[in-house]
Amino acid sequence: MTHLWWRDACQPVDTAAMTQATERQRQLTKPAGSLGQLETVAIRLAGLQGRERPRLEQVAIAVFAGDHGVVAEGISAYPQSVTGQMLGNFVAGGAAISVLARQLQAHLEVVDLGTVDPTLTLPGVRHLRLGAGTANFAHQPAMTEAQLNAALQAGHDSAERAAQTGTQLFIGGEMGIGNTTAAAALASALLGCGAATLSGPGTGLDEAGVRHKAEVIERALALHGLDAQDPWRAAACVGGFELVALAGAYLACAQRGIAVLVDGFICSVAALLAVRLNPTCRPWLLFAHHGAEPGHRQVLDALDADPLLALGLRLGEGSGAALAVPLLRLACALHADMATFAEAAVADRPA
Amino acid sequence: MTHLWWRDACQPVDTAAMTQATERQRQLTKPAGSLGQLETVAIRLAGLQGRERPRLEQVAIAVFAGDHGVVAEGISAYPQSVTGQMLGNFVAGGAAISVLARQLQAHLEVVDLGTVDPTLTLPGVRHLRLGAGTANFAHQPAMTEAQLNAALQAGHDSAERAAQTGTQLFIGGEMGIGNTTAAAALASALLGCGAATLSGPGTGLDEAGVRHKAEVIERALALHGLDAQDPWRAAACVGGFELVALAGAYLACAQRGIAVLVDGFICSVAALLAVRLNPTCRPWLLFAHHGAEPGHRQVLDALDADPLLALGLRLGEGSGAALAVPLLRLACALHADMATFAEAAVADRPA
Repeated sequence: MTHLWWRDACQPVDTAAMTQATERQRQLTKPAGSLGQLETVAIRLAGLQGRERPRLEQVAIAVFAGDHGVVAEGISAYPQSVTGQMLGNFVAGGAAISVLARQLQAHLEVVDLGTVDPTLTLPGVRHLRLGAGTANFAHQPAMTEAQLNAALQAGHDSAERAAQTGTQLFIGGEMGIGNTTAAAALASALLGCGAATLSGPGTGLDEAGVRHKAEVIERALALHGLDAQDPWRAAACVGGFELVALAGAYLACAQRGIAVLVDGFICSVAALLAVRLNPTCRPWLLFAHHGAEPGHRQVLDALDADPLLALGLRLGEGSGAALAVPLLRLACALHADMATFAEAAVADRPA
Repeated sequence: MTHLWWRDACQPVDTAAMTQATERQRQLTKPAGSLGQLETVAIRLAGLQGRERPRLEQVAIAVFAGDHGVVAEGISAYPQSVTGQMLGNFVAGGAAISVLARQLQAHLEVVDLGTVDPTLTLPGVRHLRLGAGTANFAHQPAMTEAQLNAALQAGHDSAERAAQTGTQLFIGGEMGIGNTTAAAALASALLGCGAATLSGPGTGLDEAGVRHKAEVIERALALHGLDAQDPWRAAACVGGFELVALAGAYLACAQRGIAVLVDGFICSVAALLAVRLNPTCRPWLLFAHHGAEPGHRQVLDALDADPLLALGLRLGEGSGAALAVPLLRLACALHADMATFAEAAVADRPA
C-alpha cells in the first residue's frame, strides 16, 4: 500500500509567538481591539510564521483548471470550451487573476488537470491531462481512484514548488465550467444536507436553472449513496479534478507550514474536503471572503470561518483571495510598525 | 454678508464616461457582475474622473484633530491629553494612519483645529487654534458662529491643497477624545431620532458608560432645541471642530471634482452634515467601511451608502478608509487591464 501522504500531521501553530503578538497589539497606540479583524489576523499569522511580527512579501497563486462531465446535464450558462480558452487568458495576462497577481507581485502558476480538449497545449500552462474532464457524475463516479490520487498529488506538488520559493502565503484558484455544481454536490455530501440550499446561480443561471441544478445533484447523491463520514469516496464520486487538487495543495501547505488564503465557494468546499481528510490542517486556512453564491455561508459556518471581505464576488480564479492580500499585508505593517504607548509617550486608558 | 462658499454647486458626474465604463465591464473576460462591488466602484470612479478607465495613484489623507468640552461630563474612556499626544504620534510616524499612509504612498497632512493645550506646537502639524477645544455642549453651544465658519474653512483649505497636488482621492481622518459623543449628538439632531440608538462604546465605554453618554446627549438636544432642518445650528451647538472641518473638506472636494473616501462613524456623520448643507456633494462620497460603532449603520442607511469593508474597526484617524484604498486601486487595475472576450478569444455566454 502506498504512503497516504495527506494523512500526515500538519505543522503545529506557535502559540508562544501568538502570545507575544497579542501582547504587542495591546501596547500599540490605539484603543484595544480597535483594528478589529486586522488584529486577530496579525496574531494568527504570527502563530503560523512562528514570529512576533509576521510578513507577507512572498505570495504564490496556483490556479487549477478542469472540466466537468456533469455539464452534459445542462447546469452551466457558459459553453465548456471556455475552460481551455481561459487557461490561455491566464497565461496571456488578461484574466482577473493575472491582473491581480501582477499588481500584488505574486507568483502565478496555471495547472491544467484535464479539459475536454486533451491535445490542448499552451506555453506557460502545466498540462497534467488526468482525463478529458471528469465523467458525468449524474451517471457514474466523476473520477477513478487513480485520478483522485493524481489530482491530490498535483495540489501537493504545487505546494511543494511554493515552499521551495519561500512562499509565505498560498492562494489556490480554480477554473472549470460546471464546477459550482460539483462543489455543491460535494458540500451536500460532506455536510449531509440537501442540495437545494447549496445550489446557486454560479456564473449566471436563472431560477429554473438553479432548480434543475439542485435536482441533478439530488439524483446523483441518491445514485452514489454517499456518506458524510467518507470524504474520499464523496470526492471521487461527485468532485472535480481542480477541487481535489485544491484540497491537496491546502493539506501540503499545512504540512509545510505555509499559511493558506482560501478564495470563494468552490475553494471553501475544497477546504472542507481537506479538513475532513485531515483535520490538523484547519489552523493553516485563512478565509478571504464571503462570496455571492448562496451556499457559501453554510460552508463557511461548517468551517467556523470568519472571512475578511464580502464584496458580492462570484468569479473564482482565486480573485477574492488576491483582493484580500493587501489587507493582510497592511495588518502586518500596522502590527510591526506602529509605535507603542511607551515609545510615543501617549497615555493609555487607566487599567 | 460673506459669500457662503459651501453652498456653491458641486461638480456634475460624467454620465457618458460611466456609460463607457459600464460597456467595458460587460466585455471583460468574466461573467457579468462577477466582480460585485469592484465593478460598481470602478464605474462610479469613471463618472467622477470623467474617463472610461479611472486611476488612483494620488491619494491625500488629512487628519483633523480637536478637543471636546463635553468630555467634562465623563463620556470617554481616555484622558483628554491624548488628543495632543496623538498629534505628535501622527507626524512622528507611529500612529496607524501614519503607517498606512506610508504603505499606500499617500500624502498625509495633520491639522490641529484646537486642543486643550493652546500652546501645543509640533513640527509638521498645522495648528489653527480655533479654541482650547469646543465648549461643553451639555451647558452651552459647542462653538461660536465664527469658529464654525473657521472650521469649515479649514476643511476647504485642506481640499484646496489636495487639489493643487493633483489628488485623485481624498481621505479625511479625525482624532479627538470625546468625538463619538459629538458625532452621535449631531447625527441624532440631523436624523431627528433618539440618542440611544446612536450612542456606542466609542474607544471603550462599558454598558453603564454608554447609557450615561446617551443621557448627556438627550439632555443637550433638549437644551438646544435642535431642528433637523437646520444643520448649521446643529453643528454649532453639538458638533466638533474636526467634524465641521471634515464636512468642509468633503464639500470643497466635491466642488473641485475630487472623489472622497469616507472613513467610519464620525466621518460618516460629517458626510451627513455635508450632504445636509449641500446635497449636490453626495455623488462624490464613497464609503469605505461599516465600523463597530452601533450607530454607524443608521447613518450609512440615511446616506444610502454601500461601504466596501466591515472589519469591526473603531479606530478612526481615517484608518478604515486607508485600508480600502488597495481595493479601489485593484478595482481600477482590473477595469483597465483585463482582456475583453474579443481580445482573449474567449466565448461569452449566449446572449
